[in-house]
Amino acid sequence: MKIEIIFGVNMGALGTREPEKYGESSLQQICNQITEKYKNKHQITFFQSDIEGEICSRIFSNDCEAIVINAGAYTHYSIAIRDAIAGCNKRVIEVHQTNLFAREQFRQVSVIAPVCEGTICGFGEKVYSAAIECLTV
Amino acid sequence: MKIEIIFGVNMGALGTREPEKYGESSLQQICNQITEKYKNKHQITFFQSDIEGEICSRIFSNDCEAIVINAGAYTHYSIAIRDAIAGCNKRVIEVHQTNLFAREQFRQVSVIAPVCEGTICGFGEKVYSAAIECLTV
Amino acid sequence: MKIEIIFGVNMGALGTREPEKYGESSLQQICNQITEKYKNKHQITFFQSDIEGEICSRIFSNDCEAIVINAGAYTHYSIAIRDAIAGCNKRVIEVHQTNLFAREQFRQVSVIAPVCEGTICGFGEKVYSAAIECLTV
Amino acid sequence: MKIEIIFGVNMGALGTREPEKYGESSLQQICNQITEKYKNKHQITFFQSDIEGEICSRIFSNDCEAIVINAGAYTHYSIAIRDAIAGCNKRVIEVHQTNLFAREQFRQVSVIAPVCEGTICGFGEKVYSAAIECLTV
Amino acid sequence: MKIEIIFGVNMGALGTREPEKYGESSLQQICNQITEKYKNKHQITFFQSDIEGEICSRIFSNDCEAIVINAGAYTHYSIAIRDAIAGCNKRVIEVHQTNLFAREQFRQVSVIAPVCEGTICGFGEKVYSAAIECLTV
Amino acid sequence: MKIEIIFGVNMGALGTREPEKYGESSLQQICNQITEKYKNKHQITFFQSDIEGEICSRIFSNDCEAIVINAGAYTHYSIAIRDAIAGCNKRVIEVHQTNLFAREQFRQVSVIAPVCEGTICGFGEKVYSAAIECLTV
Amino acid sequence: MKIEIIFGVNMGALGTREPEKYGESSLQQICNQITEKYKNKHQITFFQSDIEGEICSRIFSNDCEAIVINAGAYTHYSIAIRDAIAGCNKRVIEVHQTNLFAREQFRQVSVIAPVCEGTICGFGEKVYSAAIECLTV
Amino acid sequence: MKIEIIFGVNMGALGTREPEKYGESSLQQICNQITEKYKNKHQITFFQSDIEGEICSRIFSNDCEAIVINAGAYTHYSIAIRDAIAGCNKRVIEVHQTNLFAREQFRQVSVIAPVCEGTICGFGEKVYSAAIECLTV
Amino acid sequence: MKIEIIFGVNMGALGTREPEKYGESSLQQICNQITEKYKNKHQITFFQSDIEGEICSRIFSNDCEAIVINAGAYTHYSIAIRDAIAGCNKRVIEVHQTNLFAREQFRQVSVIAPVCEGTICGFGEKVYSAAIECLTV
Amino acid sequence: MKIEIIFGVNMGALGTREPEKYGESSLQQICNQITEKYKNKHQITFFQSDIEGEICSRIFSNDCEAIVINAGAYTHYSIAIRDAIAGCNKRVIEVHQTNLFAREQFRQVSVIAPVCEGTICGFGEKVYSAAIECLTV
Amino acid sequence: MKIEIIFGVNMGALGTREPEKYGESSLQQICNQITEKYKNKHQITFFQSDIEGEICSRIFSNDCEAIVINAGAYTHYSIAIRDAIAGCNKRVIEVHQTNLFAREQFRQVSVIAPVCEGTICGFGEKVYSAAIECLTV
Amino acid sequence: MKIEIIFGVNMGALGTREPEKYGESSLQQICNQITEKYKNKHQITFFQSDIEGEICSRIFSNDCEAIVINAGAYTHYSIAIRDAIAGCNKRVIEVHQTNLFAREQFRQVSVIAPVCEGTICGFGEKVYSAAIECLTV
Repeated sequence: MKIEIIFGVNMGALGTREPEKYGESSLQQICNQITEKYKNKHQITFFQSDIEGEICSRIFSNDCEAIVINAGAYTHYSIAIRDAIAGCNKRVIEVHQTNLFAREQFRQVSVIAPVCEGTICGFGEKVYSAAIECLTV
Repeated sequence: MKIEIIFGVNMGALGTREPEKYGESSLQQICNQITEKYKNKHQITFFQSDIEGEICSRIFSNDCEAIVINAGAYTHYSIAIRDAIAGCNKRVIEVHQTNLFAREQFRQVSVIAPVCEGTICGFGEKVYSAAIECLTV
Repeated sequence: MKIEIIFGVNMGALGTREPEKYGESSLQQICNQITEKYKNKHQITFFQSDIEGEICSRIFSNDCEAIVINAGAYTHYSIAIRDAIAGCNKRVIEVHQTNLFAREQFRQVSVIAPVCEGTICGFGEKVYSAAIECLTV
Repeated sequence: MKIEIIFGVNMGALGTREPEKYGESSLQQICNQITEKYKNKHQITFFQSDIEGEICSRIFSNDCEAIVINAGAYTHYSIAIRDAIAGCNKRVIEVHQTNLFAREQFRQVSVIAPVCEGTICGFGEKVYSAAIECLTV
Repeated sequence: MKIEIIFGVNMGALGTREPEKYGESSLQQICNQITEKYKNKHQITFFQSDIEGEICSRIFSNDCEAIVINAGAYTHYSIAIRDAIAGCNKRVIEVHQTNLFAREQFRQVSVIAPVCEGTICGFGEKVYSAAIECLTV
Repeated sequence: MKIEIIFGVNMGALGTREPEKYGESSLQQICNQITEKYKNKHQITFFQSDIEGEICSRIFSNDCEAIVINAGAYTHYSIAIRDAIAGCNKRVIEVHQTNLFAREQFRQVSVIAPVCEGTICGFGEKVYSAAIECLTV
Repeated sequence: MKIEIIFGVNMGALGTREPEKYGESSLQQICNQITEKYKNKHQITFFQSDIEGEICSRIFSNDCEAIVINAGAYTHYSIAIRDAIAGCNKRVIEVHQTNLFAREQFRQVSVIAPVCEGTICGFGEKVYSAAIECLTV
Repeated sequence: MKIEIIFGVNMGALGTREPEKYGESSLQQICNQITEKYKNKHQITFFQSDIEGEICSRIFSNDCEAIVINAGAYTHYSIAIRDAIAGCNKRVIEVHQTNLFAREQFRQVSVIAPVCEGTICGFGEKVYSAAIECLTV
Repeated sequence: MKIEIIFGVNMGALGTREPEKYGESSLQQICNQITEKYKNKHQITFFQSDIEGEICSRIFSNDCEAIVINAGAYTHYSIAIRDAIAGCNKRVIEVHQTNLFAREQFRQVSVIAPVCEGTICGFGEKVYSAAIECLTV
Repeated sequence: MKIEIIFGVNMGALGTREPEKYGESSLQQICNQITEKYKNKHQITFFQSDIEGEICSRIFSNDCEAIVINAGAYTHYSIAIRDAIAGCNKRVIEVHQTNLFAREQFRQVSVIAPVCEGTICGFGEKVYSAAIECLTV
Repeated sequence: MKIEIIFGVNMGALGTREPEKYGESSLQQICNQITEKYKNKHQITFFQSDIEGEICSRIFSNDCEAIVINAGAYTHYSIAIRDAIAGCNKRVIEVHQTNLFAREQFRQVSVIAPVCEGTICGFGEKVYSAAIECLTV
Repeated sequence: MKIEIIFGVNMGALGTREPEKYGESSLQQICNQITEKYKNKHQITFFQSDIEGEICSRIFSNDCEAIVINAGAYTHYSIAIRDAIAGCNKRVIEVHQTNLFAREQFRQVSVIAPVCEGTICGFGEKVYSAAIECLTV
């Protein structure tokens, strides 16, 4: 299966950005681990952008069958990304490394959740694998 | 009259994106029809971007007298685009191909409407011509 | 095409009622211009009433194919007119001469919009013609 | 017992108005059936008006002991009808043919319910008989 | 001074309608007392209607300089009457016989107050005279 | 027809619990009267529990064709009972002996109403018979 | 009749404080005019304080039969003054020189209105006399 | 690892209850599959109750190291279960077979999520395995 | 005096459940201390249940003159318990060991407080004695 | 122990102010009873002021170890008193003679409760003693 | 330039009141530093009061050209101070030593901000100087 | 000290964009003045972008010790920029040239304020210097 993992805004700073919340692995390390884990099973690609509109464009333009998306802060207000997900004709799963529901009130609303197949949040870096399992098992 | 039609986020996917809602014409086809219709009357240019900030920049930088804007999902939260419209010293008309008021609650709020000259929504691709008529007749 | 333009409450005072908002044309003048413009194209009739229930009755009882309605203040709370529109088996377009979204908060809600084909607001008397164009072109 | 059944706005269109919601019986047919059913038991009269103020006037002016009212869309905002019911010194029962609570949010509020003896909603045309039973058994 | 006192919905039942709230005087008695009191001072006329649209029409069509209006239940939701007051080019004072602020929550909102010169509420039948004094002294 | 009447929480105290609101009949007396009234017509069974989860279980497990339910206080917040009703494949009618709409604000919301066939409230013990009539006539 | 007129916070600056809203008369001038007008009719005293607690104390301690109070900004949040009015066993009328309902949203709520006999607002300095008339005529 | 899967209210009816939403597997079948899958890896036990208080008791009294809970409708309002989770000194993961965020508004609030380690929703029966993986991998 | 102290949901875990909030005494220890303290003065009984409906049943069925209730999490949403208290014809006092007002927003609402004689919260185990004193001194 | 009981606004009128709510004892009588009761146990002082700012000053300036405060109406909005309590380095208990939760909505919010050690409300004059007991036992 | 710095409620306790939030300098020390810093540049006076009404009086009565105000807790609800600022014909700047926006929700609303020239918050004692700079540079 | 001043969306149009609100200086002029003023004191750099994601990237990637940010319209909804500020390990001060609190309601919310060291708004171009002073003095 061809799957793209999309990382949203501020994800490029993973590892240095509030590591007590987001963990100490860099984005590169996370990607490497996933690549390693699924190398004989699935074709996994990665895309990171801080720019909302670029994420929308990518959701339409990549040629995967399924997307695992951690939209970062855009999760909470990007109707643009929601619309891209709803219109892209691909399976899409929403993930978050932290448990959003145990954080600030404004982080407890996801505008993209209603158009995704499902949501996994709160288990750190494990969420990417868990999503791939839910897509493929 | 020199008019620019600005298409916002996810509009590049018109024709393939939820065609039961947004119709089956591609963005290119829509632009061609408008160009054809007004070729001896007005000078019509087109601009599409998925990126909120690029739309803001364009609103200030183009040299038209009037703008017809379908901001897509940004309609509902982009105070940035609202401010660009309010500050650009051009006539601006808001359009939407679907009847926003018959859709989800969050689509029934337009943050740009208060700074536009008027709004036309719900008639499919006809809204662009209707806006041009309202500007020029 | 047989089209009726329905003018709601306080529209009989057009021309004298807050002309800086609603313009200086009387209702009669507006109707005459429309009649003149479409005399060889469509059969246009007009109906004005200050009484909510009479507007409901009319929506059912007239024999037009399409209605262009400026419901005036009833726009904001008349579920009765909404229900009449939803049940009348005719095409209905909502229009407003002013840009409601640039006015008081309570004028930014239209209870009839969700059951109309579309909405045009904010271009003064041009809205009636624009609606007829959207219905017939 | 002398009972008046009051039908509110848009009820004159019963049978043709959204029959999948409101049924296929015309208002006349409904009245005939009720008249027939109770002809030797109670004196049943009928009143229909699309006009809120006429309904208020009627609530005070008829000479029945009890009223069964289906106020239609006015149910949701007519404090005027509420006040007439509260002040008329008659027993009043509110009925609705559809289950309002299974419909749009705005239909789930009845401003007249608090001043009625009780409410019956959701059983189609049966609600009129059910109300008469509750009044007279 | 030429003043019209407009009585809104359900006011025709004054005297019999919840007299513990609205007093025991009939509408006729109230009008007679006012007429008597001001017979050599001002030209006072009276208008009562249960129908919202008729009240709107009257606000525009009468030829008084000032209006004292007790809109009854319409006070709380009739944007139509609000618009008529705002557009009629007459001085308008809002009165209520009861203290609305000591009653139900929904009666504590007046949609017409913002477009009136002032409001007097809570002193029973005295409010009409008090309003005339405020207009003329 | 096989019908079960389900009485929810605190219903076992009927007759002694706030009799000015809920009447002076005990639950046993109410059941006896219903049994008597319908003994040759329908097979009526009764179930009372103070425990939300037991009511849910019962809705699934009994073998009736229709349920008349007075869920008591659970009406206002038991999404569990709502889900049981929605999933049980039986006709279900909601009843209340008091007029909930004339009581505290929090009693004016029924979370089960949207999944019932209809609602009858406010006529004391008559509501059970009225519901049976609506089910069977 | 013995009446005290209580002026609340910032009233000592009347005449210089935003005179386009509150008029050009000083507090002293207003008091003098009232004294003059009623000198042979009623015993009128005056009290002004900027301090909420002093106003409460005064409401209990003065020996008048009735109070006319313009509580100024305290109108909108002083539950303390509300409680003093409710507990003082005197007739109390609320007045405001401006029409609060035509001003900011937060000025449209009066926490003292529900415990006053009535309210008069919007006629400038006339409100004090109008209140005295309503108390004494 | 010793893990208990707790199924909340109405879960006993899985397979027959709205199978288009919740799937066609019975609770027994789901448990059997999980048991089979993890038989050599973890010690998995199961608990189902329709009764909120029994679920609370169980959360404290079982002797597992971790709990996977699908609280059903109680998810949305049971502060009691929330408190049990918060106080039980075990790892707890929340799961739902449906994507709650694509359903009714009231289902989009989980009162237990903030005290769980994470949430997985929307992949049908896969959620139980996914949770076990997140706990143990 | 015959007094029953009712402990609600999750109270059986006192001592081990978040002891930094709820203290280190077990329920048994708390009961023993109270029994000891009042052994020659009042007849004190104890009841604990995790099940909302059992608490309701008990409120009606015990034969005490007064109840001291710590309803635990049910405090915040159990209208069922509220109704039982309101209908049981006994004096009832609400207590909480923690200061609810210094905790999460949702814990600051008690649906049972309005039907209790009074509330004591925030002094740890002392609240039970304080309530007994308020009942009996 | 050195304890000060602070009485807030309008408390000086206790005994004459709405005695059906607040009881018939004067403030002096209440203070005398408390003094008498604790004369050999604790050093109790009293402070009453109608002025919010004086109460704040006193909370800082007195030399007691603990404060029992009945802030009266200020309870509901005085963030100033809240801040004084939070900053004074003394133990503070909030009391109210009436059960605030059985009264108007606005009285059900205490802005000072979150910074007090606990709250006792609803037992009349007993609340002062109960608070002293909770402080000292 | 003649500038008065006004310190509101509880500011007299600066240095001892929650020093981890408000710093360890006493009010006297802060004033001394400011006096020292500007002694040859501007004429700086100081005013502190815990009493809302005294602050209002002072805003009108002092003879400075500009005011720097730290209203303390009154910031969040004193419409009285707002009105004094709006009416005093002086330049007024609002300051806060802490960053209000990083604190409790209720501290994030300033009712005086809209009538001030600007706001500076969050830099400890530096805010007074910063305000003077903004006024005078 | 190394400080970067970040200008957000639409700031490139300063000078021509609504100069009555934002002043007549171009962005270039503002930067020149700041550079000039601090040339021997601090190393000041400037960054402007209309694109939200670019601002986020820049906050992480520049090598300054402190940031002064005027995020423009993004202030009101960009949780992305908020997260970048919170995670960048630099001192950050928020500034606005206009007094946001005196403008539309939606401009009175800053989602970035809670993660900044402080906020300065309302003094035109002076805010940049004031922020630099607060950082460096």
